Amino acid sequence: MNKTNIIPLFAKVREKQPLIHHITNNVTINDCANVTLAIGGSPVMATGIEEVADMAQLADALVINFGTIDNTMYQAMILAGQSANRKGIPVIFDPVGVGATRFRTELAREFIKKVKVTIVRGNASEIFSLVGGDAQTRGVDAGEVSIAKESLVLKAAQQFHAVTVISGKEDVISDGSDIVTVENGDILLSRVTGTGCMTASLIACFAGAIDNQFFAAVAGMSVMSLAGELAREQLEGHEGLGTFRVKLMDEITNMSGEKWEAGARLK
Amino acid sequence: MNKTNIIPLFAKVREKQPLIHHITNNVTINDCANVTLAIGGSPVMATGIEEVADMAQLADALVINFGTIDNTMYQAMILAGQSANRKGIPVIFDPVGVGATRFRTELAREFIKKVKVTIVRGNASEIFSLVGGDAQTRGVDAGEVSIAKESLVLKAAQQFHAVTVISGKEDVISDGSDIVTVENGDILLSRVTGTGCMTASLIACFAGAIDNQFFAAVAGMSVMSLAGELAREQLEGHEGLGTFRVKLMDEITNMSGEKWEAGARLK
Amino acid sequence: MNKTNIIPLFAKVREKQPLIHHITNNVTINDCANVTLAIGGSPVMATGIEEVADMAQLADALVINFGTIDNTMYQAMILAGQSANRKGIPVIFDPVGVGATRFRTELAREFIKKVKVTIVRGNASEIFSLVGGDAQTRGVDAGEVSIAKESLVLKAAQQFHAVTVISGKEDVISDGSDIVTVENGDILLSRVTGTGCMTASLIACFAGAIDNQFFAAVAGMSVMSLAGELAREQLEGHEGLGTFRVKLMDEITNMSGEKWEAGARLK
Repeated sequence: MNKTNIIPLFAKVREKQPLIHHITNNVTINDCANVTLAIGGSPVMATGIEEVADMAQLADALVINFGTIDNTMYQAMILAGQSANRKGIPVIFDPVGVGATRFRTELAREFIKKVKVTIVRGNASEIFSLVGGDAQTRGVDAGEVSIAKESLVLKAAQQFHAVTVISGKEDVISDGSDIVTVENGDILLSRVTGTGCMTASLIACFAGAIDNQFFAAVAGMSVMSLAGELAREQLEGHEGLGTFRVKLMDEITNMSGEKWEAGARLK
Repeated sequence: MNKTNIIPLFAKVREKQPLIHHITNNVTINDCANVTLAIGGSPVMATGIEEVADMAQLADALVINFGTIDNTMYQAMILAGQSANRKGIPVIFDPVGVGATRFRTELAREFIKKVKVTIVRGNASEIFSLVGGDAQTRGVDAGEVSIAKESLVLKAAQQFHAVTVISGKEDVISDGSDIVTVENGDILLSRVTGTGCMTASLIACFAGAIDNQFFAAVAGMSVMSLAGELAREQLEGHEGLGTFRVKLMDEITNMSGEKWEAGARLK
Repeated sequence: MNKTNIIPLFAKVREKQPLIHHITNNVTINDCANVTLAIGGSPVMATGIEEVADMAQLADALVINFGTIDNTMYQAMILAGQSANRKGIPVIFDPVGVGATRFRTELAREFIKKVKVTIVRGNASEIFSLVGGDAQTRGVDAGEVSIAKESLVLKAAQQFHAVTVISGKEDVISDGSDIVTVENGDILLSRVTGTGCMTASLIACFAGAIDNQFFAAVAGMSVMSLAGELAREQLEGHEGLGTFRVKLMDEITNMSGEKWEAGARLK
């Protein structure tokens, strides 16, 4: 993918300030709200079944995250997702922990039948489970999968009719025909909770500000991976994950088309 | 308002360590607990419908925040609010997102009929919706309102029989007859989630430690706006919202009557 | 206790990366996930009644925390706890706020009858309430108790048939026959929300990686108290609780057998 497709998008997000409705887990909900603000969006995290359909109608994109899923929250997700579908609002789906328990796996497979999702983001075993594979996700961490990531992301994008993002050491993104690989990243991103969830929020900010969902997915994913690299570079010897998290949010605040162009490594 | 009314209150909060019961959203609940500790209070965040009435009886002030409202949480708020009313414990109401959906607006208007609130804090479109105006809150962000803030805060305070705080670029506070304007603040306060919610917690700490609710509202609101200014001054060029949040909590920890006197700009 | 029992455990946690299932409050859930990662474990925070029994089976330890308890969450805790019991997975119980309301106290006493807990961690009034004493916990803060901590911890460990940890200015830990006192700590640990909850997560990481539950409890408790001391030492004059929290997480990330040996003061 040509970098010139992505460079102008940062200014577009900051200009439009897209409203991002999240129905998400209570572990990383604060991080998701803050990262949305950091990149230039505006978060709203309404989860009440009584109002989610109305709130989704006001939004520029909807994020659905399965981190702490139960049946009540699932009903809210269906209502919000179908409401977003009616108005053509992009839906970003993060199937956290799918593959770990049967409950999650079955609900996630049902969700993508009932709601048309625009972009799906997960780790390899989550996506493998979602396409029907028999992966064992370890809690919410990626387990082993028996298929190359490139084949998996292509297959998933075709099956879901949705841009698909698999995050990992290298991130792969596909629209069902092309594949982009993001070579940025740092191992510390896997040692802070919520970097995956926050990536979905970043993707949603781009998806809510522009029309091309493939560009949105590449932009959001690469911002997180690049920001992780840049945050790590600033750590001094005695610092740890506390400081890394702070620097990560700083780097996302200060991300720009120019900074991204200089640092992003796409393939 | 004479600054000498506020200066001694910081020591009073730290001496009494008021217990602040919050029933609040799960986005900023951790920030609210930490800011309560930072100013010298003690937070408790019980939300179970089975115990909120009992917990409210133990508290020095009760904070009710509509950020992630649903019917179950609303029932708990009514029980806690009426329990606080029976014992004369101040109730601080934060109508987050009111004006965005009909569900929120109707529930908030009902809440202030069923529970006697002591202090109300919101942005302009939330307060405008609460007094019966037809504002369109944008998610949880302020929308446009067709009335001057000073008229609105006065009208609201009279209508609610409660001290009312409207936060924004300048903050206005009224007890129904006088109006105080806080000229402190920084745009970054609107780019971190929860600064509004945390302001309600700060107000509650003062309200739980002293009798004058107007002073409590001015103190709590101005602490947040001043701390935002001081935190911004410490940012170096490459830092962003991650560092700003940390410095903000530092500044609130270190706030004192003297520091406040030197920095606060009231009108 | 001989320090040589504890020194090698840090490497064991980092090697095994135990999966720690938490059913916990929504105030400090993010901190608990991050501290689990910082010490070398892997957190999963599933709370849905539909899957907690399955998720607990995948875990190396289960943390049950009463911070924002209600009946729905309690049912999930019973299901997960009994599931863990069936497979012999250690259960760490944190009776937050027990003694503050009758609801909490009765539910906690019932919980330890229905689920075999391996380690219990609380402050003095929480543990006193749990053994049947008539303490008044102040919200979630320790109240006064009429019994020496050493007698209380011994009695509790014997009554629960569980290693018991009482945190405070000095922490005491007992397996029902021996008592270990941790003399590390800093008053700032009581001014940040969640340090108690995070201690339970740390204990769970050790309990999920080794067989000796007494060692696990001493290791987890002393890591938090020592990290608090080390974090405080790094604060500069103008810094406050925001920076302290960041440094605390840094110190836990960088904790090692050697660092612990040099700093821990056991008796």
